[in-house]
Amino acid sequence: MQIKQRTKRLKSFMKDNGIDVAFISNFENQFYLSGLKAILYSRPILLVIEDNQESLIIPTLEEAHALEKTDADHLYVYHEVEHKTGGMSYHEQVDIVISKLKPGSTVGVEYNALPTDITLKLMEQGFDIRNIQHEVATMRAVKSASEIEAMRHSGKLVSKALEKTITNARAGMSELEIDYYGNEYLFKEVPKHFPNSTLDYFVMSPSGIPRTNMPHVFSNTRRLEDKDIIIHSRQVGLNGYRAECERTFFIGEPTPRQRETFEVMIHAQQAALDFIKVGVTAREVNQKALDVIKTAGLEEYVVHRTGHGIGVGFHEEPSLRFDNELVLEAGMAFCIEPGIYIPGVGGFRHSDTVVLTESGTEVITNYPKDLDSLVIH
Amino acid sequence: MQIKQRTKRLKSFMKDNGIDVAFISNFENQFYLSGLKAILYSRPILLVIEDNQESLIIPTLEEAHALEKTDADHLYVYHEVEHKTGGMSYHEQVDIVISKLKPGSTVGVEYNALPTDITLKLMEQGFDIRNIQHEVATMRAVKSASEIEAMRHSGKLVSKALEKTITNARAGMSELEIDYYGNEYLFKEVPKHFPNSTLDYFVMSPSGIPRTNMPHVFSNTRRLEDKDIIIHSRQVGLNGYRAECERTFFIGEPTPRQRETFEVMIHAQQAALDFIKVGVTAREVNQKALDVIKTAGLEEYVVHRTGHGIGVGFHEEPSLRFDNELVLEAGMAFCIEPGIYIPGVGGFRHSDTVVLTESGTEVITNYPKDLDSLVIH
Repeated sequence: MQIKQRTKRLKSFMKDNGIDVAFISNFENQFYLSGLKAILYSRPILLVIEDNQESLIIPTLEEAHALEKTDADHLYVYHEVEHKTGGMSYHEQVDIVISKLKPGSTVGVEYNALPTDITLKLMEQGFDIRNIQHEVATMRAVKSASEIEAMRHSGKLVSKALEKTITNARAGMSELEIDYYGNEYLFKEVPKHFPNSTLDYFVMSPSGIPRTNMPHVFSNTRRLEDKDIIIHSRQVGLNGYRAECERTFFIGEPTPRQRETFEVMIHAQQAALDFIKVGVTAREVNQKALDVIKTAGLEEYVVHRTGHGIGVGFHEEPSLRFDNELVLEAGMAFCIEPGIYIPGVGGFRHSDTVVLTESGTEVITNYPKDLDSLVIH
Repeated sequence: MQIKQRTKRLKSFMKDNGIDVAFISNFENQFYLSGLKAILYSRPILLVIEDNQESLIIPTLEEAHALEKTDADHLYVYHEVEHKTGGMSYHEQVDIVISKLKPGSTVGVEYNALPTDITLKLMEQGFDIRNIQHEVATMRAVKSASEIEAMRHSGKLVSKALEKTITNARAGMSELEIDYYGNEYLFKEVPKHFPNSTLDYFVMSPSGIPRTNMPHVFSNTRRLEDKDIIIHSRQVGLNGYRAECERTFFIGEPTPRQRETFEVMIHAQQAALDFIKVGVTAREVNQKALDVIKTAGLEEYVVHRTGHGIGVGFHEEPSLRFDNELVLEAGMAFCIEPGIYIPGVGGFRHSDTVVLTESGTEVITNYPKDLDSLVIH
């Protein structure tokens, strides 16, 4: 039912802007607008939305999945075997879909996602293309009550998984091993409480001074050492809706410089969490965290924005960044995660997920943030 | 050193084909041609290869990572914070890179990967674009001795992880729970034997008749039941090089129809494994498996090719498909996985990873395939 409301809104935008058909190629947008969350890899999928119908170009091995999960009016199934419709390929099916478009149609596409081959097909046949990525991102940014409810579950799960990892971490264990404690929790607990659900998750735990200064690296086999700093980062997506929780923690006592920087980081995060609400701008939230860091003289060690939207995507709009004047609305959800990365000292970042309501905010992740709780002995 | 050989070969191809610069946007190709395996999400990365230099357009938070992993001559770093180079954005950095190209240059791009926004920037400024996706795929298809050595380790790991899951599976456990046994093995064992390594893995275990008939779905919270059929599917990538192992197994006794179909499937897989070698075509390998299935009268239940290449990618070229006349070469690596999917009966598929050598083949995954070994009591 939500899917219908979403496609209805997109169609109304298309109508208002003279767009006849939308080609949706980003898999998160496909999930948002059709219900099909496919495992994308070597077999592309294209969602085609027109005023009176929706179609999917999909490989055979997603056909049953698409029938179960979507209300698509047409499935253009491409095959890898000759005996099925002569082994029609993906590009042949795309050509068929394009051949059915009215000549001179305007096609809405995601400029940041549609690959060159389809772009060129459309342009060579004289279709006008128009960027609709911002409209879809804007729709996704404001969550419905049921989307927020889904994210609340993910918030509880991710917080608990994070707790399992942090409380079990010891010197001598590798980054991968500490990740495993939280993963084990998810694999065992989610099935008990959420029948017929999908789970996806992301986790990384860069450890030690050089690796915590690389904010995004896969966990590896490096073993934690005494006096290590670690940024443990997790996302959980239950039935496609995500929440994020991250904590910086220590094996044994941090140095005085690490203590000071840690305190600046948690105050910066708290300043943004205290400030964020309906009616302020994304830029202002970013600035609130940055002001704390600036006052402490650490601004040069900031390398990323204060936060980002979250929902169907790992990271989505709105971005809490210096150049974003967007006024925040009820139903938006954010990860608040200002970071400080000092060579020779370490990387410092907590992240929590917060939902904006008409009356205030609701933080949907929960784990202690203070230094005493985050030093493992 | 391998990276240098690879870029040298690409540059030689570019020279021969009048291509002045390559824009590489697929993250697997970026890893293959630069050494940087980034976690891609909301922040794009572009690898730019010219005859005399290589550049990366990357976000600040990959800067340290790129310095460690690559020999790029130039890093065009884009920022999310104002105090760093005025907060230059990704698109501004792309514009700078494009502005340095000689007017009228021909730009090689991956037609199946480069998003519309960059395609249009190039075209609007009068650059000629040319598809180089096939050349890069062809390079990746033939592995070096050290790549094969890396894949052998992944082959052992994935086989052992699969064993852990299958031997621990019981009625009443969910798909996610059985996945966990193999995952636990990886998280605990990899750090012991492979210091300073990265691990990525993929796993899914669709269970029961309807779900095994959907060849690619995420594991969910469905609990295994007595008499269930399960397709347990795994990939492991150690330091970026992958191997795949999959087994169809049963909780309790299969039905006579399931037994028959299972036997057809393992004979089909074995026929392809026995036949594949240097000098035969991809089409012929596909056909060998299909012939067995056809003889058994089950051809209509085949919905995908017999197999695909594997290496840096989950699935890569060459495809073992009816329309691929490519002659196979030493150094190529394949997953051999013919599948049979019968409504009301179940989905049947084993997969093993095999490397072609001058003198024969080497199967790098290893777990029993016969029915007796794959019925859990």
